[in-house]
Formats: sequence, structure tokens, C-alpha cells
Amino acid sequence: MDEVLADTLVQFLRYYNDEHGTAFSKQDVEGKKFCDVVPSAHKTKVQRYPLSPGFFRDIPVMAQSQDTVMALNGVYEVFIATAAMEYPNSFAPKYEWLKEHFPFIPDSHIVFCGDKSIVAADYLIDDSPRHFSRFKGEGILFTASHNIGDDRYYRVNHWDDVRRRFLSPDH
Amino acid sequence: MDEVLADTLVQFLRYYNDEHGTAFSKQDVEGKKFCDVVPSAHKTKVQRYPLSPGFFRDIPVMAQSQDTVMALNGVYEVFIATAAMEYPNSFAPKYEWLKEHFPFIPDSHIVFCGDKSIVAADYLIDDSPRHFSRFKGEGILFTASHNIGDDRYYRVNHWDDVRRRFLSPDH
Repeated sequence: MDEVLADTLVQFLRYYNDEHGTAFSKQDVEGKKFCDVVPSAHKTKVQRYPLSPGFFRDIPVMAQSQDTVMALNGVYEVFIATAAMEYPNSFAPKYEWLKEHFPFIPDSHIVFCGDKSIVAADYLIDDSPRHFSRFKGEGILFTASHNIGDDRYYRVNHWDDVRRRFLSPDH
Repeated sequence: MDEVLADTLVQFLRYYNDEHGTAFSKQDVEGKKFCDVVPSAHKTKVQRYPLSPGFFRDIPVMAQSQDTVMALNGVYEVFIATAAMEYPNSFAPKYEWLKEHFPFIPDSHIVFCGDKSIVAADYLIDDSPRHFSRFKGEGILFTASHNIGDDRYYRVNHWDDVRRRFLSPDH
């Protein structure tokens, strides 16, 4: 969900820039985590932004994710899995966000978990390579600033790449 | 979780008896669902009890579940999966309940889902046979009033049976 369906980095940038009057952009974060880009005295504060009640509710939707997931959902059985257990106060806003932006995914196909090795699927599209280590299917790495340079997995840079891989006539 | 770790039927009985001054007991429900035992005019109301904010927070713990799951956790990798998506307002109370009664299960090993076919595990101990139909491992049916008579799966009547099956020296 985060950094794949939800453009979570944009939310971090918003929170920080609003608070500090800065103008950090995605380009400034390339190849890093945002908490390592800000002054070190601010690192913990940035890591705690997701604990804010509103953080997960109004994250922008990742470009082309809605129409691509809808198209995938017509051909595959799609589940949305998110490591929500990292932030237990995120359950309700994450659920509401999914209902708003991906209403065509039924409740039965939403999974809040911690360790995604528990997910039984053929493919897992994720920005965090750590979820692939014990996953039984194929991990598809969705490009995020923090995973650039990791060449261990099949990589997609955006949802158009997912469409080409899984929905082109010769896929 | 419900009817396996949490004695959810007891909570239904409590809610109903408190409201109506009745004395329904587990024996009255044997072989049925509680909503089919009460007068038909009350059926919908009973089905809506889980929507009450406090419903999932103070359900009694199923006998012997804590020590048995703790013992299992020393030998197996244990995940707790619950079909929480049926009642989205249950996320927070279910999580708090688990933290109180099963604090030795880390967040990484808690799964809130809908359709448990998404769970990748060798065994699934559950009271609802519907979760076994597409589950890839072995379904272990935990006896509950509503599943008596279903002989399609390996059955355990209580947590001592689980202990015998999975923790006896010759298991």
C-alpha cells in the first residue's frame, strides 16, 4: 500500500515542509530515506509522523494505480496487503483510504499484517525488499527512493510497467 | 481468533441476557448459531452486537488457549489471523485484546484479513470451515456450537486437543 498505491513519501514531504517552511522535493530524497535527508536532530520526529492520527487518511494516490489495479482485478484475484501492524493507529484511516480510492476491492481481499511472508500469493508488488525474503511467490520491486540500486528483484518503476508486465497481450 | 482464542459466544450470551433478563447458556446454543436460537424478531439485533464499540475488547479468553499458544510458539512459528474485515470498527479493540492476552505474539505475526485463503501456513486452526476451502495447508476445525456435525476436517474440541496433536512427544 505505502509507496505503491499510496504516495507516502509525498505525505512525509508535506508534513516536514509545512512544519519547517522548507521545500524538500522527491528529487532530494532519491536513493535515500527521507529521515536520512533531514538534519539529524529531526530524524526521530520524521519517523514519528505516521503516528499522527491523520497521516494515513489523505495520502495522495500513486499515479495510475487505480485504473491499473482495477484492470488487474478483472483478470487476476487481487489482494491488497499492508504492513499496518507497524502503526496500529493506522488501521481505521488505512481502511477508509482503501474504501475511498479502491472501492472495487472487497473487504475480503484486504490484509493488514506485519510480516508479509504470511501472504499466500503468486506475486507481491512491494517497495520493501525485506518482504520478499520468505515470500513463496515472485517479488516485484516497485521503485521507491529508498530501494534504488537494489537489483535482486524484477523491478517496476510505475504502474504502467505493471500493466505491461501483467496485462499486455503477450504477458 | 473468535471462538478459538476468544470465547465470543459467551459475549453474545452476555449482551443478550443483560438486555433481556434471560438466562441463555452455551448448552442452549449447541448445534446452532445464537442468532437462530433467539426469537426471530431479535435475530438482526444479535447479528449487530459485534458492531458495538466495546464488543471485541473484553471477550473472555478461551480456556487453555494462552498457555497452549505460548507452548506452540516455542516450537512453531505462530501467526494469529482474524477475519477482522467483517467488522472494520473491530481493528483497534481486537489488537488491544491480543496485546493484553497474547503479548508474546509480536505485531509482525498478527494478520487482520477477510478471506483466509490468503494465509500461507501449514495449519489453520479455525471454527469456520469456510476458511478451509481454498486454504493450502491443513484445516483444523476448532469445535464451536455452530460447527458440530461437520466431519470433513480434523477436529479439536478444546486447546488440550491441540496440545496433544502438536506438542505430544510423538506428534
